[in-house]
Amino acid sequence: MEMKVMADTLWVLITGMLVFFMNLGFGCVEAGFQQSKNCVNILSKNFVVFAASTVAFWFIGWGLMFGDGNPFVGLQGLFMTGGLDNSPATGDAYQGVYSALNWTGVPLAAKFFFQLVFAGTAATIVSGAVGGRIKYFSFIVFSLVLVGIIYPISGHWIWGGGWLAKAGFWDFAGSTVVHSVGGWAALTGAVILGPRFGKFGPNGRINAIPGHNMALALIGALVLWLGWFGFNPGSTMAADPRLMSHICLTTNMAACTGLLAATAMSTWMLKKPDFGMTINGCLAGLVAITAGCAFVSVSSSAIIGLIAGAIVVPAVIFFDKMRIDDPVGATSVHLVCGTLGTLFVGLFAQDWVSPNTTGDGLLFGGGTKLLMAQLTGIVAVGAFVLVASSITWLVVKAVMGIRVSLQEEIEGLDIGEHGNQAYPDFVGRKSHISYLGVSNSEGRSS
Amino acid sequence: MEMKVMADTLWVLITGMLVFFMNLGFGCVEAGFQQSKNCVNILSKNFVVFAASTVAFWFIGWGLMFGDGNPFVGLQGLFMTGGLDNSPATGDAYQGVYSALNWTGVPLAAKFFFQLVFAGTAATIVSGAVGGRIKYFSFIVFSLVLVGIIYPISGHWIWGGGWLAKAGFWDFAGSTVVHSVGGWAALTGAVILGPRFGKFGPNGRINAIPGHNMALALIGALVLWLGWFGFNPGSTMAADPRLMSHICLTTNMAACTGLLAATAMSTWMLKKPDFGMTINGCLAGLVAITAGCAFVSVSSSAIIGLIAGAIVVPAVIFFDKMRIDDPVGATSVHLVCGTLGTLFVGLFAQDWVSPNTTGDGLLFGGGTKLLMAQLTGIVAVGAFVLVASSITWLVVKAVMGIRVSLQEEIEGLDIGEHGNQAYPDFVGRKSHISYLGVSNSEGRSS
Amino acid sequence: MEMKVMADTLWVLITGMLVFFMNLGFGCVEAGFQQSKNCVNILSKNFVVFAASTVAFWFIGWGLMFGDGNPFVGLQGLFMTGGLDNSPATGDAYQGVYSALNWTGVPLAAKFFFQLVFAGTAATIVSGAVGGRIKYFSFIVFSLVLVGIIYPISGHWIWGGGWLAKAGFWDFAGSTVVHSVGGWAALTGAVILGPRFGKFGPNGRINAIPGHNMALALIGALVLWLGWFGFNPGSTMAADPRLMSHICLTTNMAACTGLLAATAMSTWMLKKPDFGMTINGCLAGLVAITAGCAFVSVSSSAIIGLIAGAIVVPAVIFFDKMRIDDPVGATSVHLVCGTLGTLFVGLFAQDWVSPNTTGDGLLFGGGTKLLMAQLTGIVAVGAFVLVASSITWLVVKAVMGIRVSLQEEIEGLDIGEHGNQAYPDFVGRKSHISYLGVSNSEGRSS
Repeated sequence: MEMKVMADTLWVLITGMLVFFMNLGFGCVEAGFQQSKNCVNILSKNFVVFAASTVAFWFIGWGLMFGDGNPFVGLQGLFMTGGLDNSPATGDAYQGVYSALNWTGVPLAAKFFFQLVFAGTAATIVSGAVGGRIKYFSFIVFSLVLVGIIYPISGHWIWGGGWLAKAGFWDFAGSTVVHSVGGWAALTGAVILGPRFGKFGPNGRINAIPGHNMALALIGALVLWLGWFGFNPGSTMAADPRLMSHICLTTNMAACTGLLAATAMSTWMLKKPDFGMTINGCLAGLVAITAGCAFVSVSSSAIIGLIAGAIVVPAVIFFDKMRIDDPVGATSVHLVCGTLGTLFVGLFAQDWVSPNTTGDGLLFGGGTKLLMAQLTGIVAVGAFVLVASSITWLVVKAVMGIRVSLQEEIEGLDIGEHGNQAYPDFVGRKSHISYLGVSNSEGRSS
Repeated sequence: MEMKVMADTLWVLITGMLVFFMNLGFGCVEAGFQQSKNCVNILSKNFVVFAASTVAFWFIGWGLMFGDGNPFVGLQGLFMTGGLDNSPATGDAYQGVYSALNWTGVPLAAKFFFQLVFAGTAATIVSGAVGGRIKYFSFIVFSLVLVGIIYPISGHWIWGGGWLAKAGFWDFAGSTVVHSVGGWAALTGAVILGPRFGKFGPNGRINAIPGHNMALALIGALVLWLGWFGFNPGSTMAADPRLMSHICLTTNMAACTGLLAATAMSTWMLKKPDFGMTINGCLAGLVAITAGCAFVSVSSSAIIGLIAGAIVVPAVIFFDKMRIDDPVGATSVHLVCGTLGTLFVGLFAQDWVSPNTTGDGLLFGGGTKLLMAQLTGIVAVGAFVLVASSITWLVVKAVMGIRVSLQEEIEGLDIGEHGNQAYPDFVGRKSHISYLGVSNSEGRSS
Repeated sequence: MEMKVMADTLWVLITGMLVFFMNLGFGCVEAGFQQSKNCVNILSKNFVVFAASTVAFWFIGWGLMFGDGNPFVGLQGLFMTGGLDNSPATGDAYQGVYSALNWTGVPLAAKFFFQLVFAGTAATIVSGAVGGRIKYFSFIVFSLVLVGIIYPISGHWIWGGGWLAKAGFWDFAGSTVVHSVGGWAALTGAVILGPRFGKFGPNGRINAIPGHNMALALIGALVLWLGWFGFNPGSTMAADPRLMSHICLTTNMAACTGLLAATAMSTWMLKKPDFGMTINGCLAGLVAITAGCAFVSVSSSAIIGLIAGAIVVPAVIFFDKMRIDDPVGATSVHLVCGTLGTLFVGLFAQDWVSPNTTGDGLLFGGGTKLLMAQLTGIVAVGAFVLVASSITWLVVKAVMGIRVSLQEEIEGLDIGEHGNQAYPDFVGRKSHISYLGVSNSEGRSS
């Protein structure tokens, strides 16, 4: 037994470290896909937001999410002060206030560490979508609310033993808990902020604002992919040899087919294999498989990735047409594919993969019950986060403002917000704002 | 027993993730050592090729390589559909069609994951050597054949229980299985494509085409080094405390002495410690120790690295003199040092390191038998891959063409193949093609 | 028992790999914070120094540090030839000459690997502080002495069972053993070399020399943070579930509060949240928690990080005012916060965290005994390294010179020392030396 605790803890901590490393991945992808004049600002936002998240999750989020309470929110164990907790004892032997996690036999600190790095991810998703025009400290305040309150509440419904868990909703590693929540917060932020100056021209013109560093974007993408091997397989929170190996395969496969599908799709729609789309296709596959990675077969994961990668390309174009300015495609990747992936559990789940969890999905003879539960969760979480984050953005806007001045935006947030330059030794090129009929050359797509 | 499966699986999955991360390493080294106008193209090739490899290895390569069959090729277990496989059972208790891997007690999915990330490496080696002039989709098609068919066949001979394994040939982690195979495919590709425009001038002149980003190259080199701690120690495919610790040391030592030797050698031959040579010396040491990391002492690993690092510098110059344009030195690193490393097993192996495997090599009183077996393998694999990949390249050339137009090559493949720019915010410098008597300033050595 | 050895070895090797990866972190932070004309030189120094360290530590350092000997130095087990060592046997069952490490039940090679990557860190700290003007080979010679002799001797006092260990001095993962030692060596180097040309103007003017690549700096910072999850939790050198989980939390928390404090402090002192200060605040928190990560509560770690992050900002300004030119703030981060963190053990330690080690610190009713022991260690190690590294620098200076010519310094060390350029495809901006009253725009801070 003691040996099992060792192995489980090794797995949880090491995969948690990989998830932590996703902070670098998000920072690099988001900075690479935006302009050099905003590079320091984006990097700094991604860096500081994890620190802010740690504090917020430690003070309040963790207890709201995993503390014992009612079906809607955790009420005990705030400030990690839940009294006696005898982890790594499990099941009925567990005595403490975080009983929603009594199935994993690791020390309390390991549980907290693993959930903390997940919580940090949600805020980091928002960062990209609001880039290039948000005030630095306003973003941090929003993130504190998101990680301290909004994310934990909907998380409690699902992973904290709340009403959605009881309703038969399944989200293994967080397509909804993490990615859709981050995606909704990103979408509301992007809408409330409005587009960057020059992004949308008159007569429906959509302007290309290319990302400044594709090498940085690739570093980010591969670090994220690596991190996902922590995110998904680590969510077993136990060293279960068969399951964690299986999840490595489903995760990897969906990333690959997503990548290939988006590359093909962009070759077809944009005439050439756009590199930004290839990257976003990979991330789309990863986001989509996150909910079902422990519930579907490897073949199904290939199909799930394929669909997600194919959809992310028109999704990016769709948001542009809606004149919603999301410089890195975060909404298309995290919200659209997070929602899809959650839904796909209802279609592709097979009981043999993780017995006594989801049962079979619709395509494998399981009927529509699971699918309906998934839909319920998608709608409920979406409605909650949409409202809660809109209110938060609007309050922040009213109290401290959320958008930098037009002059600062044009000069770049690096100088305006930080007094820094990202690359002072190099001669920059003037931003050439060219109006195009179609946005085939977003930051994500140069 | 169950605990051992846990520990073994932890080790195999985590080291497999590190090997996966080598995709980032190869991408960064190769892009850093080439021109900025081709940066997106190189990154995209390295990124997409792993996805393509995953699909090809899943569909066919895995079965050809590890499925039961004859001494030349695996015939069962294609599409991972080998029927019942009761891994993690081992030895005689194992029942399934992948009996060549019945010595490792991890789930089938873990075996597949670990071998998959190895297979991806082979294709990635090719990418650098053919950079700057190959058509994007032609490269992907070649890679599908390489990872789906060529690599698994020679791999079956060695790791799949085929004729070379039975002949007493040893290659612990793949100096030949992976690196030489990739190196031969790279060499044939570079020759069949011909050199980049401007690389070789009249009268035997060799032109310097400096790499565009040495920071990117260093990131790549250190990510590769980290990845090699997965590649070599992970190839135990079991948590064997003594052996995996030993392999960490031999791997690290050879990297260090290779790095130092190439730095010294370039200081001597080129008058200054060329940074590209330092990086390639490190990789040379790593490639060379890969075959013998589990069979030689730490002192021997120091010598092996030293020789590899010293040889890589004249090797780079040699290929330039042969007017073979390999922009990143992949042939010198992977083919030359992979071959050397395989041979060195026959010289430096000592029975005590891994009892009941290689026995002692020539320098430790073991006679020439092992050395002859190693030579046999080197020649056989070399001949096979040379022929098979030449045919593949020529077929691809005939069917879809392999080289971009001269105009596209001059303008850069980023625009031509992808419609992207890697660094649109920065002012570029015109390619200044300076003719030099000696190539001391390749991409890898600027 | 055998299973425990497996789990322990898994942990030690994997965390050792993370510490190895810190080489990339240091390289990127240091290069990002300095000028592009010196980028190759800085990267190459960081890369080569680890190889040199490996050789020096293998030949002599390891034996001096961990070999049995007297309270001041190890005398046995040089060249890893300590005769029979029956690791992983522990305690009284251990027979060998490295009895200071007989408490950890892993193979000898794993112990060596883990300690080796630590030793490499010390040299790497120096690299940044002496950047922009030191001769390449002179730096390498100094590093050989530092890692081969100086670091192991003071290390023997503490981790090798020497006199400081017996005096009740505690430094869990090396705030003093590694960071202060590196910091003192960095400080002496920076002083003896003198400032970079143009750094300090007439009339007390301090000139800003901005770092050239903030994306590179962030990559470095997050890689370092990841590496610290190896550095601190790995220093358990055993898979102790409770303790290693706890250390993940204290390490992470101090990084976060350090980051936030430095961001706030720079906003207050410099009017804007300077990105370089944010990064250095994070590293300051990490350095400061290193000594006490296994001895203090999570709440205490938050306070320790907060203080370190707040102090690093005025510390950077202080060294500038003293006209000591440390281009990356290494002295402020590693020496100042390493010293602080060591001292804080005497204040914040609590017996329950690691029973039978430090006992309680002053703030938790433990009296001043621990604090005095900590002070003794700080002073003793500081005095030793100050003297030993000054002598070493002066001998190197006398024998081979340590500073490049003024002309080479102005043109950049990349060309002068290596014949390379880091970014040949981009148009550079002329160094504009602007004199400021205050240094708010150091490499690390703009």
